[in-house]
Amino acid sequence: MTPNDAGLASHSLRAFRKSLGATANDVNACLDDLLPLPEGPERRVVEAMRYSTLDGGKRLRPFLVVASADLFDVPRTYSLRIGAAVEMIHCYSLIHDDLPAMDDDDLRRGRPTCHKAFDEATSILAGDALLTKAFAVLSSVDSHPDDFIRSKLVAALADASGAEGMVGGQMLDLLAADLDFDEQQTERLQALKTGRMLAVSCQMGGILGQAEPEVLKDLDAYGVCLGAAFQIADDLLDMEASEADLGKATGKDEAAGKATFVSLHGPGRARKRAKTLVDQAVAALDRFGDTAESLRAAAAFTVSRRS
Amino acid sequence: MTPNDAGLASHSLRAFRKSLGATANDVNACLDDLLPLPEGPERRVVEAMRYSTLDGGKRLRPFLVVASADLFDVPRTYSLRIGAAVEMIHCYSLIHDDLPAMDDDDLRRGRPTCHKAFDEATSILAGDALLTKAFAVLSSVDSHPDDFIRSKLVAALADASGAEGMVGGQMLDLLAADLDFDEQQTERLQALKTGRMLAVSCQMGGILGQAEPEVLKDLDAYGVCLGAAFQIADDLLDMEASEADLGKATGKDEAAGKATFVSLHGPGRARKRAKTLVDQAVAALDRFGDTAESLRAAAAFTVSRRS
Repeated sequence: MTPNDAGLASHSLRAFRKSLGATANDVNACLDDLLPLPEGPERRVVEAMRYSTLDGGKRLRPFLVVASADLFDVPRTYSLRIGAAVEMIHCYSLIHDDLPAMDDDDLRRGRPTCHKAFDEATSILAGDALLTKAFAVLSSVDSHPDDFIRSKLVAALADASGAEGMVGGQMLDLLAADLDFDEQQTERLQALKTGRMLAVSCQMGGILGQAEPEVLKDLDAYGVCLGAAFQIADDLLDMEASEADLGKATGKDEAAGKATFVSLHGPGRARKRAKTLVDQAVAALDRFGDTAESLRAAAAFTVSRRS
Repeated sequence: MTPNDAGLASHSLRAFRKSLGATANDVNACLDDLLPLPEGPERRVVEAMRYSTLDGGKRLRPFLVVASADLFDVPRTYSLRIGAAVEMIHCYSLIHDDLPAMDDDDLRRGRPTCHKAFDEATSILAGDALLTKAFAVLSSVDSHPDDFIRSKLVAALADASGAEGMVGGQMLDLLAADLDFDEQQTERLQALKTGRMLAVSCQMGGILGQAEPEVLKDLDAYGVCLGAAFQIADDLLDMEASEADLGKATGKDEAAGKATFVSLHGPGRARKRAKTLVDQAVAALDRFGDTAESLRAAAAFTVSRRS
């Protein structure tokens, strides 16, 4: 899909990439601050946490938190920390998913995976500690002075990332090949594994902004459509891109016999479906008018990215 | 050590065991409620969570939460849920510690460990999901109506169980044999790995009771001494008890060349040290008078237990 397919001029996609990069820099600085190295030998686990977190990811989830919070003029000092917490959850899930007992991947973002750079035990602990740290950050008064908001943030992130969300999705992913998932089951898997975290990122921006329930619902709808489009784009990339482009192993879905929208319907229909989902995501932002421009660009970017 | 060594008549130790058992039953019912099985195939991860949680542990940490909260007349409906959340963290740590890449244990509480009963991938995910669920429970209004208290509970538990607490201690434990830890380093390892979670259990009871900082400090001091005594008792059991008594592998510390107080100073001095620590724990409860009887009994129990 070209940027124009998504109804977005290429110059605004360039502007978006710039804005995404600037937010990523801010998030990286925040993550760096939040993960100081201790003195004792236990620093090894923090080194592993830093290795897998400060590694040049796109920071799409933190961007969604920040851009959603921007709709309500939430100070960036808050939204960046909340974005960093969401990224910690994302990074822990990547560390654990890459383990030999799980997807057994050697490469991630162009570098050895955590258990290759350190060892399995340290990687399990680094994932556990990142997951724990995310909630430490959310509950800190530095992340928002209002107790009610902090508590809602914890509830939202725990709900989206646990057994009824991301972890449940990863469980389904491990079972998918054996259980011969049909299209509906595959979509549910992906909604849990990837969609929930993207949607909750948008919702958390709304929670920071004390958005009314119906506004949160629109942000959630945007995130759900974005997540589904993102997943199709990911599967297209997995099928088409080379390992060097992506900095991780590719063609693994096909090798594992996993049914995806792409494998079931082919790349042509998949691109069309992704476009429809982007349109739906954009439509959910109607109430926000011009202020939601960067979230609209994020939706277009999601399906135009090459890595 | 006999119960009398700890300055406690054997009838009050019997009464304590009864009270511990009753709280365990209530905590088990609460855990059962908090971990309902979903419909989809992702139920496998919840089955593993339930397998490793509803397995007849002593529930010492939840007992400490409940008994500390009782000092302030906190309704049990709150303290039991908070105790269940702490137990979820404890159980996740056991699942992950037992993994082949970590301590590689086949037995836990007399049954196959999670990865033996299920598989490694499911066990990693079950641990992750339990860790996440603990924070979902803490942030729920059903656990306490006051946002400030819920937020403090999340902060306290995240702090005690992360890289600066329990996970840091497990990292040290994995490094201990290679780094040839001296006594001080071993005590620090144990304080992080075991002590912090016992101490935070007591503190969380105090947080529920809106205790003043100096009162929380006393509860913390009690928990720290209790934790150190508990660890010595654990190491004595590891050295002396048979595998059948403990329901898990024994003699592993010695085999792994880990320096413990027991291995460094022998069982005689270790028992004496445990008694001193119990006395210190009890002394920290002075301000509470008779209301703290069950916490005093818990301290004595800690070093008298046979499993």
